[in-house]
Amino acid sequence: MLEDVVRKGRLLDLYGPLLTEKQRRCMEMYFDMDLSLSEIGEELHISRQGAYDMLKRASHSLENYEQRLHLLARYDAVRDKIDEVERLLDREEPQTLERAKQLLHEIEL
Amino acid sequence: MLEDVVRKGRLLDLYGPLLTEKQRRCMEMYFDMDLSLSEIGEELHISRQGAYDMLKRASHSLENYEQRLHLLARYDAVRDKIDEVERLLDREEPQTLERAKQLLHEIEL
Repeated sequence: MLEDVVRKGRLLDLYGPLLTEKQRRCMEMYFDMDLSLSEIGEELHISRQGAYDMLKRASHSLENYEQRLHLLARYDAVRDKIDEVERLLDREEPQTLERAKQLLHEIEL
Repeated sequence: MLEDVVRKGRLLDLYGPLLTEKQRRCMEMYFDMDLSLSEIGEELHISRQGAYDMLKRASHSLENYEQRLHLLARYDAVRDKIDEVERLLDREEPQTLERAKQLLHEIEL
């Protein structure tokens, strides 16, 4: 659960508003503020184990939302295309311009 | 509830996977397949009033998800920028190319 901090942080950015207030605070303290489980427990007036269980459940919820909506995967795909278009435009050649237009046309939101 | 069919259809595309199976089917029959409340009731073995209530609750859920995640609003904003970039690239002038790059750079996902 505790590995892949970057992924969890991004899932939290995307789906955080769907968590309960307490779950979201718990996740933010752990992933954004880097607090320990004991510190989070103190803040939320729950045990260290309680903080761990809350993190685990919240984390599971975030993964579950991603499994249903795939926002992370979709945004990565769109981001890749936009980055590629930016690189193509920097070259400022007619043929890269055509490819850039094509890529933009393929972007689905 | 029944107005704004286009908006509801788009919300259903975005958040449909978060509804229950029955709610999703109900919404699809009403908004995509254009069935009447009586027909939906028959399909789902519930009353016409039951179909109406289910549509209303599902519709409320979709609006609630949008209120939390703002995907529709965010996608519209990104779509507008991409459309503008496409128009700028079609003009193929140096100054529009710079503006196109700037717009792409502003896109947040």
